[in-house]
Parts: sequence; C-alpha cells; structure tokens
Amino acid sequence: MTTEGGFAAGRGPGQVSIVGAGQVGTMLGMALVSAGPEAGVTEVTVFDREPSVAAVSLERGAAHRTLQRVDEGLEADTIVLAIPVQAILSFLEEYGGRIRPGSFLIDTGSAKVAVVQAMQRRVPRTVHALGGHPMAGTEVPGPGGATPELCRGAPFALVPVRDDPAAIAQGRELVGTIGAVPVEVDAETHDRTVARTSHLPHLVAYAVAGVAREAFARGVAVPSLVSTGFVGATRLAASDPRMVAGFLWANAGEVRRSVAELTGALAELTAAIDDGPERLAGALAGVRAQVRDPA
Amino acid sequence: MTTEGGFAAGRGPGQVSIVGAGQVGTMLGMALVSAGPEAGVTEVTVFDREPSVAAVSLERGAAHRTLQRVDEGLEADTIVLAIPVQAILSFLEEYGGRIRPGSFLIDTGSAKVAVVQAMQRRVPRTVHALGGHPMAGTEVPGPGGATPELCRGAPFALVPVRDDPAAIAQGRELVGTIGAVPVEVDAETHDRTVARTSHLPHLVAYAVAGVAREAFARGVAVPSLVSTGFVGATRLAASDPRMVAGFLWANAGEVRRSVAELTGALAELTAAIDDGPERLAGALAGVRAQVRDPA
Repeated sequence: MTTEGGFAAGRGPGQVSIVGAGQVGTMLGMALVSAGPEAGVTEVTVFDREPSVAAVSLERGAAHRTLQRVDEGLEADTIVLAIPVQAILSFLEEYGGRIRPGSFLIDTGSAKVAVVQAMQRRVPRTVHALGGHPMAGTEVPGPGGATPELCRGAPFALVPVRDDPAAIAQGRELVGTIGAVPVEVDAETHDRTVARTSHLPHLVAYAVAGVAREAFARGVAVPSLVSTGFVGATRLAASDPRMVAGFLWANAGEVRRSVAELTGALAELTAAIDDGPERLAGALAGVRAQVRDPA
Repeated sequence: MTTEGGFAAGRGPGQVSIVGAGQVGTMLGMALVSAGPEAGVTEVTVFDREPSVAAVSLERGAAHRTLQRVDEGLEADTIVLAIPVQAILSFLEEYGGRIRPGSFLIDTGSAKVAVVQAMQRRVPRTVHALGGHPMAGTEVPGPGGATPELCRGAPFALVPVRDDPAAIAQGRELVGTIGAVPVEVDAETHDRTVARTSHLPHLVAYAVAGVAREAFARGVAVPSLVSTGFVGATRLAASDPRMVAGFLWANAGEVRRSVAELTGALAELTAAIDDGPERLAGALAGVRAQVRDPA
C-alpha cells in the first residue's frame, strides 16, 4: 500500500509509519488520522517496542493498525520517528540505510544537531530526510497524554539535513496537514533556543522538586503547605524521564551554558533583594514585561 | 454596624474589613460574600489605595461596599490584610495600635516571621491577631485574577502571634467559612517551607524568562520556537511584582538558602548528564516519583 514511484509534495503524506506510540507519536497520529484521505493520508501505522502502548495509541485513534516489527514500516511514504533522541540515533544507525528510496523521513526529537548529523551519515541521499520538532505537548507521558488540539497553531521546527527542497516541501505539507505552523531553522539555532526555552525549564523543574523534597525529608519544611503554584512550577518534572534524559544528553553543551546563564541570573536577582522591595519590584517588573512580549 | 462587645469564635466573621482589593483580597471577599449571613458574615467592606481597583473588586462581588480611607475599617469584627508584605508591615506600624479591642486581625502575606514579629510589637494584646496565608491563587494580578473556587480544599496556613486560643479559633472559623483547610504552623517552619515551594519557584520563573529573553536579544535564540512548556515554566513571572518583591525581601534569608540548594541540585543534575541517557533517566525518574508523592 505504498505510493507508486515514491512520494512527492503536493500529494499529501500518503502511507505514514509512526515509530513510537508515546505522547508525541500518538498526538501526530491522531491529527493525521483525523485529516484523512482528503489530506492525502492514505494509512497510518504505529509501532512501539511496548505492544501494550501501541495498543492504547491505536485505541485512541492514532493509527489504522499497529506494526509488530519496526522494520515493517521502512517502506512507507512518510516515516515519523517519535521516540526519545537516543532511540532516534539508534534507529538511524540500524535502519537508516534500509529506508525506501523516495520516502520522506522526519523525526520529532527535541535536540537537532545530533539527529541531523546522524541523518547525514546514515540515511542515503535518495531518502528525503528532515529534522522535525513539534513545539506542543503536555507533561503527561504515553498515549494517554496526547492532545492533538495542541498542534493547531503551534510552531513545528523544520531543520534541513541537506540541500533538499523536496524534503522541506514535504515537511511543510505534513505540518500543514496537522494544523501546525512550520518554522524553518538550522539545527544549531534550534538547539540553542530550546536549551533555554525547554531543556533548562525541564532541568529546573526537577531541581526545584528535588530541593523541596530534600527539605521535607530533613524536616525543615512541611508538605502540608504545598500550593498550586508549586505543582505548576514542577509540572515538567512529571515528563517521561527517558525523553528528558535523551534531549539533555544530546544537547549537553547548550544545556550547560544555559544552566550557567541561569545561575548568573539567579545571583543577580538574589543580590537585588538587598536593594529593598521597591527597587526589587522594579527589576521584576522589567522581566515581567518581557515575559508578556517574548519577541 | 460592629458586633456589640467584640467578637468571639462560633459567631462567624461578623463585619469584615478587607484591606487590599488585589487577587487575594478579592478572592477572599467573594468567598465571604457568598458564604453570607448564614455563615455569620454580616457585611464585607474592601479598601484599596487605588479606588478604581476597589471598584472592580466590588463589581466582582467581593464586598458590599468600598471604604474611602483605610482607617474606616479599624472598627470591624474581622480585619483581613490582603496587601504585599511590605505594605502589611507599614499598616501595622501606622494602624496596629488603633484596631478596636476584641477584633480579629489576620493577614495573607507569604512571609510570616516578619509579619508575626510586627504584630507582636504593634498590635495590642486586646486584639486577637493571627498570621495567615492562603495557599491558593493564580499568577494573574488584580481583582480580575481572583478565583474563589481555588480556596475550596486549599491549605490556609494559620500562624500564632501569641498564646491566644481565641485567635486560632477565629482563624479556623474564617478558613472554614471559605472552604479552605486550616494548617497550623509556626512562622519559621512556614517561611522555610514557602521559600522552597513558592518563593524559589517565583524567583526561578523570572530567571528562566530572563535567560531566554537575553538569548533572544543576543540573537542566539529565536522566539518563534517558544513552546507551551516555556509559557508554563515562566507563568509565575507574570505575578504582581510588588507582591513577589515583598515576600522575597521579607524572607530573604531562607530565599538565599533555597537558591544555594537549587544551584547545588542543578550542578548535580548537570553532572549526571555525563553518565549517559540511561543512567540520567534513572536519576530523573527518582525525582519524578517524589513529585507525584511530595509527602
């Protein structure tokens, strides 16, 4: 059920093979199944190394059928790698050379330099390979956390692997099919950005949760006073640890730089406390204005 | 319209004077007006130094009438100080000695050692004074952000000022009236706890927002990739800067200790990145389990 003679932009995603039935794979699968044949989506399959996870994803409407083996999906028109970054790299190592010529290959990993370099090394030029990253999701891991409505209007980074306009065109088409907004960006800029807008906030959520837990354990603080603000501030620490570990590890250099910048910003704000509440409020108001208008 | 012969627990809050028509004052006022005469709430008045803010609060149903001058509320049965910590300290300095004997006085500030000490110094023993802190709210400042439903089931810290069982009883009654859960705690434990569960998360939200903004300004990152996760992680930086500055300043010692603990936790997690994604995932999973069960 593959498209004769390969795949070209303007004909839709065709037969789609999603690798990974977690939150991201299920979210994209649900959006693609909804888009349906009118949008050129002829079939969606999903594979997960945990068959029970794939079954839940199928039940949520993320695919027409599940695959038993990951290599059954290598003949699809569109292959979407929706697995943690370290698993994407392993997939490319093992299966990159076996993808059908003319196919469109995209991933959804949150660190792009490592993925794009692996695509350059492992995926033949006959395949239209593209780095991808949907900037939408929840902290709830697994297919149960998938919220396809979040795709609508959300940025979806498209990161070139080679000079391959067809890959970009097909990426734009896929992103348009699910209602997201394509943002073309090079891998380095992507990784520098998400280090600060996503990877650092994740790391900080774990660190804040750890500080509170440690204080509870030492008995210097009492969990009975935990507020809605704390729950919100540590929400990202409920994310899938394998996913978070993957992108922190794959983007370690920029993550370290971001942590250093944060430590500096914290020291500055802490020092400003000595200036008294009026001047401190002024300093905070400056940051607040920026939050409202991040551009 | 004050209660003859002062006020005693078991008769409800009586006539309530709320000082401050921001999010907290409006939230409490709406909950008290809803509770009504059956719960012993005979009248609620609200004062704000900005009359337009008091007017919005009144419109939202947080009071039966507004006061033109703050000292008009000093004769009430119950006085609620719902203003930033620095303003609470100024109020106690100026008006603490003029509160009607037999009244119940409670504040809602997020730093309790400074407030309780000021109450001890400035409020006569004839007044039943108590430190208070409702652990519920949103990051939206002003009366528009008030969400009285958040009171229901939320912890409400009650912090003794003196050995005054009547003050505690009246605090419990007030908290019960709005559907919150009283948590008796000493000022030091409160401040050590909220330093880590609230003040640190606020400071971190400003710092994370500042790091991203700085990267955008330097052109090393692009705001077009900002995700829902970033918006969530920096939400607390949208809070009222005067309120945040007040509690950071009033709880500076514990805030500094918490920042040092966070810097240590960040360094540990950053070092764990070198262990590779599998071991790092294990470390993150440990924190994640704690987040789910903070007690």
